[in-house]
Amino acid sequence: MNNSAITYIPGGGVTAPKGFKAGSVHAGLRKKAAEKDLAVLFSEVCFAVAGVFTTNRVKAAPLLVTMPRVAGGCAQALVVNSGNANACTGEEGLEDARETARLAADLLDITEGRVLVASTGVIGVRLPMDKIRAGLPGAVAALSRDGGRDAARAIMTTDTVPKETAVSFDLGAHRITIGGMAKGSGMIHPNMATMLAFITSDITIRPQHLQEALRYAAERSFNMISVDGDTSTNDMCLVLANGLAANEPVEPGTAGFNLFREALTAVCIDLAKAIARDGEGATCLLEVRVRNAPSESDARKAARAICSSNLVKTAVFGRDANWGRIICAAGYSGAEFDPGAFDVYLGDLPVALGGRALEFDEQRATAILKEDPVVVTVDLHSGTASAVAWGCDLSYDYVKINADYRT
Amino acid sequence: MNNSAITYIPGGGVTAPKGFKAGSVHAGLRKKAAEKDLAVLFSEVCFAVAGVFTTNRVKAAPLLVTMPRVAGGCAQALVVNSGNANACTGEEGLEDARETARLAADLLDITEGRVLVASTGVIGVRLPMDKIRAGLPGAVAALSRDGGRDAARAIMTTDTVPKETAVSFDLGAHRITIGGMAKGSGMIHPNMATMLAFITSDITIRPQHLQEALRYAAERSFNMISVDGDTSTNDMCLVLANGLAANEPVEPGTAGFNLFREALTAVCIDLAKAIARDGEGATCLLEVRVRNAPSESDARKAARAICSSNLVKTAVFGRDANWGRIICAAGYSGAEFDPGAFDVYLGDLPVALGGRALEFDEQRATAILKEDPVVVTVDLHSGTASAVAWGCDLSYDYVKINADYRT
Repeated sequence: MNNSAITYIPGGGVTAPKGFKAGSVHAGLRKKAAEKDLAVLFSEVCFAVAGVFTTNRVKAAPLLVTMPRVAGGCAQALVVNSGNANACTGEEGLEDARETARLAADLLDITEGRVLVASTGVIGVRLPMDKIRAGLPGAVAALSRDGGRDAARAIMTTDTVPKETAVSFDLGAHRITIGGMAKGSGMIHPNMATMLAFITSDITIRPQHLQEALRYAAERSFNMISVDGDTSTNDMCLVLANGLAANEPVEPGTAGFNLFREALTAVCIDLAKAIARDGEGATCLLEVRVRNAPSESDARKAARAICSSNLVKTAVFGRDANWGRIICAAGYSGAEFDPGAFDVYLGDLPVALGGRALEFDEQRATAILKEDPVVVTVDLHSGTASAVAWGCDLSYDYVKINADYRT
Repeated sequence: MNNSAITYIPGGGVTAPKGFKAGSVHAGLRKKAAEKDLAVLFSEVCFAVAGVFTTNRVKAAPLLVTMPRVAGGCAQALVVNSGNANACTGEEGLEDARETARLAADLLDITEGRVLVASTGVIGVRLPMDKIRAGLPGAVAALSRDGGRDAARAIMTTDTVPKETAVSFDLGAHRITIGGMAKGSGMIHPNMATMLAFITSDITIRPQHLQEALRYAAERSFNMISVDGDTSTNDMCLVLANGLAANEPVEPGTAGFNLFREALTAVCIDLAKAIARDGEGATCLLEVRVRNAPSESDARKAARAICSSNLVKTAVFGRDANWGRIICAAGYSGAEFDPGAFDVYLGDLPVALGGRALEFDEQRATAILKEDPVVVTVDLHSGTASAVAWGCDLSYDYVKINADYRT
């Protein structure tokens, strides 16, 4: 983050902004007894909400329930479970999602329509509603201003670390805070939403403007990460803004809106990189910078294709400076560029210039590939647009984790 | 193959059709001393030629030399080397490819424009022309009617087995033979050419009609296989027809043309399946059948997305009946279908019906996943079109092979 007006809050998460509480319990949806798997996020006052959702044609029940409520622009609570995706579960699955929201609404004494739901885990198995019914009262009872970290843990699946971040900035006399949590390590790929991410803020903003800021931020963060190329049935990113900072509503085109949008993008990039870094079996973060593309769309296509290539990812895992695979991926990405003009850098070491191989120091290349993150730069010399994408390497452990996920 | 008019020729390959000879040597391009790495294919008479080539924006030098010669419709010899792709090698690389053709033309006493070239191996390193110059005379001297198998070996890279096939059928009094060889085990993906495949026939056919038959066959074979999603800079499929069967030229719209097209498709599917089966680190062939899609394009998109999904491939490797990943891949494939209506079968065992999970016998599912090929069928109940795609599982060995390919 380059903007000095934006400050990180160490250890901050979704309960950093004013008025947000979180509570979590182990409801028994995940196997390990100690692991929390059901979280509730709540604001005393109703909040503006915006969301981006998976483009998968098969959408899980909680998305079908949540999407119209987000479109309504206002909500007050969110229930998230791990261990079960409630996807491909038919009409009963939809009813289970609605019942979850209804139960939470009763406990929180708000209307059901103000409760959003999200799920992550195995596809095609009905949500064990007895466990949800038994667990929800405890999660609501646990609601606390310190509950952010536990909530970030409760939404994990194969994640090895909870993912949280928070920043603040000033709008005149008003201190604005943005917090976020995310889960996701496999099934991560461009074209939103590609994981679960929940972002909170105490800013005052109209829902349609919140949506506009989220689209901008998601395009530069969650849509630029890739772990294995699969977009799931359940992915979503929600932003909740409760207005407790008491600023005048920020309007697009103003400096205040731009600062908020930049801070929101910083939060989203932070979470997105944390997800990519925690890719299943990953040993390092891969950052791919494409510059001088004919258009931003071309730059993004090339950067994402390179980050998604199994051959690039295995070469990075093997610390093998096989740059031919990098340019090969750019070549099939659909991006326009002059195949006779590109440069490729590993870190700051040029390995190809003007579309051709260079003699380079293999030992130095290997040393660069042992850094974390591994930074790859491709200069297409075909325009002025640029983009950054993040991914990770492909290791034995990726195969191991995914070969026996259910069993 | 269902057409009883078409007969397989056991052990047959590119030299099965009349008039084709092949010769190969170890020129020193591959490291192991015993491995042949340079092959020449030659017909005494000039042949009609057709080809499909990689869609990668970055095309290797041999493609840039060969493509216009194929467009010319006539050729007489082909030189293929493994160990070096001659890609991203600039103007010198182009000159190396042209010199290779020129040297072969001199040795064969034909014009340079009638020689095609193809390369496979590492990207970004110049072809060691001293080894090509030293090796070519031996390859030409070795030309023989029995040279097909050695040629199939000489074009291998990480392939574990040579890939050959041949069929014959009768057009009136004329026995027509088609033979083929292919290499490819990583970097295999739809959108042609996706590997090297060379097919020969003694049929008499005009180049533009040969091209029409090849497009039909490639669409149903090479474009329906996937190992790791990357399309290379070097992939091509060529079909060479020398007319020595002495039939009247077959014309589109006739029974003879349709029979040839079907036999050519059978050869291409056979080679494509052999490539998928030999995917780097693969332990089984994966066959995905999609039926009742709104259009053939939808059926192909869904079948290919399922075959390409790392999550599906690792689940197959783990013999884990995680069918949710199958329908998830269909969902993000871009194929249109009713997400509330699909059925999924492993072998003949239904695991989801009408868009919903079924209780099924896990032991039986695991047993089916231990078969080779593993057959997955998805019925979209959204039309009448169908397609078949082939791939393989994703194993530890895939990672191992690709993590240190160059070193």
